Order: sequence, then C-alpha cells, then structure tokens
Amino acid sequence: MTKRSELRRYPDRGSHDASTIHAILDAGFLAHVGFAVNGQPFVIPTLYGRCGDKLYMHGSAASRMLRELERGAPACVAVTIIDGLVLARSAFHHSMNYRSVVAFGTARKIQETERILDALRVISEHMIAGRWADVRGPSEKELKATMVLEFSIEEASTKIRKGPPIDEEEDYALPFWAGIVPISLSAGKPEADPKMRARNDVPTYIRDYEARLKSNRS
Amino acid sequence: MTKRSELRRYPDRGSHDASTIHAILDAGFLAHVGFAVNGQPFVIPTLYGRCGDKLYMHGSAASRMLRELERGAPACVAVTIIDGLVLARSAFHHSMNYRSVVAFGTARKIQETERILDALRVISEHMIAGRWADVRGPSEKELKATMVLEFSIEEASTKIRKGPPIDEEEDYALPFWAGIVPISLSAGKPEADPKMRARNDVPTYIRDYEARLKSNRS
Repeated sequence: MTKRSELRRYPDRGSHDASTIHAILDAGFLAHVGFAVNGQPFVIPTLYGRCGDKLYMHGSAASRMLRELERGAPACVAVTIIDGLVLARSAFHHSMNYRSVVAFGTARKIQETERILDALRVISEHMIAGRWADVRGPSEKELKATMVLEFSIEEASTKIRKGPPIDEEEDYALPFWAGIVPISLSAGKPEADPKMRARNDVPTYIRDYEARLKSNRS
Repeated sequence: MTKRSELRRYPDRGSHDASTIHAILDAGFLAHVGFAVNGQPFVIPTLYGRCGDKLYMHGSAASRMLRELERGAPACVAVTIIDGLVLARSAFHHSMNYRSVVAFGTARKIQETERILDALRVISEHMIAGRWADVRGPSEKELKATMVLEFSIEEASTKIRKGPPIDEEEDYALPFWAGIVPISLSAGKPEADPKMRARNDVPTYIRDYEARLKSNRS
C-alpha cells in the first residue's frame, strides 16, 4: 500500500481488504478507467470481468484507451455501486449509501488466443452468466479486431457507506423527514429482437438476470 | 473541439451536441472524475449538479481530489447511464445500451459564500429536487469545512447506444435468443431514520423520487 491508495477521507468507511474488494468488483459490472496522456486525464466507461487480482477488459483494437493502456501506462479503475440516498436533517450531512473500489495498476495486452478466449468468457459470464455457452463464439477475424487487456491490481481500496443519516446531536430535534431512499439497478422484461426468426423462449439464465441484480444489492 | 474529445470508435453513436450532453448530465447524478498527479491517474466517484456548461461538485476541504482540481489541473468527468444488456447471436456483437458523457475542462474553487450556497443548492436539487427547502442549511463552520468546485466544460462528447443487437447477416439464422434486457436504477420504499422523533409522513418530493428515476430512463 502506498500513498496513492491511502484512505484519507472517512477512513472508517474504507478498507484494503481483498475479499471486500473482490465482492464489490463482482457485484458491479461497469468500470470507469482512468489514464493520462501528456498530463491530460481520460476516463472511459467499460465492462469488465474479474479473476483473482486481474480485471479483464476488451474493445476494438483501434480503441484509444486500450492502445494507451497496453503500453503499460499507469491506470486507475473505479467501480461504484449506488445503494441509496441518505437524507439527513442538515444539508451538510446528506450523503449516499454506496460501495466503491478504486484500484491502481497496469494492463498488458493478452497475446495468446487461448488466453484471449478465456478472458472474453470471463467478461461475458460476468455480464450475464450462462450466455457464453449460448452464442456463436468469436471467429478468427473477430479475434483479430478485438484487443483484450489484463489489468493487474497492484493496490486498491474500498469505501462503503451504509445505514441511516448521522446528524449533529442538536439536529435530531428538527422536524424534517430523515432516512434513506434505497436505490438499485433492476432489470426489465427481456425484449426479443424483432429480427429473431425462431420463436425461442427466453432462456432461464436471462430470466434469472433480475435475481442476479437483486443478489448484488447491499 | 480538439483531439481529446474526437469520436474515434463508433462515431455514429457519438455527438458533441450541447443539448444531448446536458440531457445526459441531467439524467445521471454520479460522475467519475479523473485527474493525474505526476502521471498517476486517479478516478473518484462524486455527486454533481449542473448549471449551463458548469458542473458543481463538493466535498471536504481536505479531499485530495478537490485540492488537486482547485489548482486548475486538467480534469475529465465521465457520466454513464446503463440502459440495458444487448444480447446478440454472436459473442462479438454483444454490447450495452447506454448513454455517456465524457467532458474535459478545469475546475476552480468557489470563494464567495453566496455562490457556494447557490452551488450547494444546485447539487442538492440535482440529487433530489425539493430537499433544499426542507433541511437545516449549512452553518458557517460547515461552510468552512466544505470545498465547492465549479468545473467548466471546455469540450465534451456523448455516446449513446440503443435498440436491438446488430448481428452479422448470416448469424440471424442461428437459433440463439437475441434481444435486450433493459436495466435502470429504481428506488425502493423510503426508510425512515429510526432516530426520527416526529412521526412525519414521507414528503411528496421524496415519494416522487421513483418517478424522477423513471423519467430519466431512455
């Protein structure tokens, strides 16, 4: 652990514990990846998958982000899950309930076809478990157009806030409504592609997706 | 518009149109802010409010992010709204439906108390409209402990993907289920702080919050 992942603000909300880091990374699926080019920072949203302390990301071989990262530039990956609004009696103590990871490390491009396929499977299964076995896999041409990066987490920290608002002692007598409004991602009814020729039923793993989102709630 | 906000990948999904940028910023409420310190990128999640081409952010006067940004360091602010999983017949054409903004600019610290209060109100009303009039406002001591930044958007781009998967022509005959699974944020039932003394009803603007989230869906 170095200065860059030191928990300065609200250290009581923070941790460097690997199992907490992994649990948040597994509950989320959208990362915001930061890198700098000549001092100019970029932040790009991307999907990911996790295996141990590695995150896998993919995209076009022409992507600016991936081409910068594969050079080994220092990167920062943030994953944030919103759990609720925290409505205190004072404006000052308003907050969010959330779980977040900020991870530092570097990425490298995966070269071997077998490992590329493994990583793509990890990303796909992280997005929606069960899908990888139920699609046409990548062709040679598609693999050539795809860059897959392995981001090694060198250090990371988490922050978690949960529970009701914490107000100043004298403010508890104020008449304002206080509490939390839970917020979470939820899935709507799957919408079949109008161009689908076979009238397939929605597969179980897709119908189960809403339950997966629910299980990721705090 | 310069190289940094050039739309290289899927330019047909992208835009530099101000009204599109503003609509996405108004529909989201969580930003990921990127900045670099000696080449090391940081990405920090934060709430924000918008007024014109300015974003307002606040936090502790001791926050690393705010102290770096107030020096005028180049920053990148990303706001991403997930609208759904896009399940294609081929692994390669899987995607997400989403709306995102990547904005570049610099921030400055707001010094004048009146403008600080205005900015805090904008952030609060962006989080949940109606709340600012229903709380104890910031004390002098609280204002001293709070730093408020005005981030001026110098250039920005949006990306939007919507609609069903787009597959290779020959893949439409494959038997896999294809379509989208809509995803959105939703609010649960407000949970009163157990320490609330008056048995207040949940105010209308809090009961309306779920409707606000719904109205932000694509």
